[in-house]
Amino acid sequence: MNVVIIGIGLIGGSFAKDLKLVYPEANILGIDTNESHVKEALELGIIQGEGSYQSLALADIVLISIPVNALVLELPKILDAVGDETVVIDAGSTKRLVCQTISNHSKRRNFMACHPIAGTEFSGPSAAINGLYEGKTNIICEVEKTAFMLQEKALEVFQKLKMRIRYMNPDAHDKHIAYVSHLSHISSFMLGKTVIEKEKNERDIFDMAGSGFESTVRLAKSSPDMWTPIFEQNKENVIETLEEYIQNLETFKGLLLNDDFENVYKEMNNTNRIKQILKGIPLTKK
Amino acid sequence: MNVVIIGIGLIGGSFAKDLKLVYPEANILGIDTNESHVKEALELGIIQGEGSYQSLALADIVLISIPVNALVLELPKILDAVGDETVVIDAGSTKRLVCQTISNHSKRRNFMACHPIAGTEFSGPSAAINGLYEGKTNIICEVEKTAFMLQEKALEVFQKLKMRIRYMNPDAHDKHIAYVSHLSHISSFMLGKTVIEKEKNERDIFDMAGSGFESTVRLAKSSPDMWTPIFEQNKENVIETLEEYIQNLETFKGLLLNDDFENVYKEMNNTNRIKQILKGIPLTKK
Repeated sequence: MNVVIIGIGLIGGSFAKDLKLVYPEANILGIDTNESHVKEALELGIIQGEGSYQSLALADIVLISIPVNALVLELPKILDAVGDETVVIDAGSTKRLVCQTISNHSKRRNFMACHPIAGTEFSGPSAAINGLYEGKTNIICEVEKTAFMLQEKALEVFQKLKMRIRYMNPDAHDKHIAYVSHLSHISSFMLGKTVIEKEKNERDIFDMAGSGFESTVRLAKSSPDMWTPIFEQNKENVIETLEEYIQNLETFKGLLLNDDFENVYKEMNNTNRIKQILKGIPLTKK
Repeated sequence: MNVVIIGIGLIGGSFAKDLKLVYPEANILGIDTNESHVKEALELGIIQGEGSYQSLALADIVLISIPVNALVLELPKILDAVGDETVVIDAGSTKRLVCQTISNHSKRRNFMACHPIAGTEFSGPSAAINGLYEGKTNIICEVEKTAFMLQEKALEVFQKLKMRIRYMNPDAHDKHIAYVSHLSHISSFMLGKTVIEKEKNERDIFDMAGSGFESTVRLAKSSPDMWTPIFEQNKENVIETLEEYIQNLETFKGLLLNDDFENVYKEMNNTNRIKQILKGIPLTKK
């Protein structure tokens, strides 16, 4: 199996590692605008060689794992270069613009729009880990626009990586993911900012960070190169989630100001349901 | 060594477990208004017996790990009951009110105001774990008001549990901790609320939760019984942190609305410093 991974960072590199475990015969080539990433991925044994757009014609699978602003620019050129049997999948965190960009491309049927919900706050080939995708959800958009044979090819890979598949349209994807992922990142970045601004003595932050701060602020370590274009492409949805979040914070502040601790308690108690939700246990509604 | 732990939950139970490892001869009694907690702690072998306020007279160490509203009510009665050689330590997340409450108590010198910065989002005796305090910061307030011999006794225990000690006055403690801990909890609770309100289909939350949401919302699993009185006692500081947090979120929203993605990038890039801060590495300021 010939595989080309465009963007050899955490997402692309982890995909390569797991793919090699389930397809030991796979020849995995890497492409990256950052030459040191290619070099590092070769040294780490994540890829077997460096690829080029010329090598795409013979690829069975191409994974594009680059920031979403680069994705919408590169995808048309990548599709131009692939063979008839090649399935191109992406890993972008937004889906509306990318689907729109190639909707009239002559090789639209070679593309499968994907968003594997997996990652860490780290980046680069050295951040690649085994098992990143196991048990994780892969959201596939507009599946009907991908050639059936190529759907099968991609789904076989996802199955071997033990991913769970969900189908969604691009607009619904971008709306849902704004709540469950994009808002989390902004809340975390702004929490980090608020604390750094106030605590001029960084030692104080470190010493007191045990009490929950560290996990809440984890996403504030994320790469601005990746996240700025996500927020740009999903601007309307992200602004909507931010407005609702700010409104909820204002309401909570109002309860504190009014000494309404009965409702402060209720707000927290109602939100405790998140425990069951994250366990995936069906809830009986109150 | 005679030890009495008042409030046998995550904090008290974990303290008991580690204490028993370093002082195998310790006789640890537990007191809890929730009878099932005492029963559970006995069954789990966390305590050797049930205590009462009468047993406090013979205690070497008393740890109070109960919600801070109960703490300010019980501490004067507990001090009334202890012996001259007993050091009473607490684990409350606020320090101003508790120090103020017993400032004129005849046994003020038997009390050491403490806040071990340690915990998880879980509660109850079954949540108690070994090693919870190792390497964690213990903030001690008004240390000069504790009898010197009793300071030594408590510090020996903290040292054996491998805690790091910081001294602070109660007002500074409550102000700092509002940023580094209390605000994190509110941001997490309100994030959980915003997502639950919007995503009526809880399966969607679960399926998409991989991408950072789970860690950011972790603290929203915390106990409202513990957190409501904390917010009540630290109301002024918490409101101040909330206002600054909301302001930062509004600013970020404004950048998105104005398509100012250069500054969206900068905001995130500046906050990435949190990586180094959380590693405790001294930073060279830009």
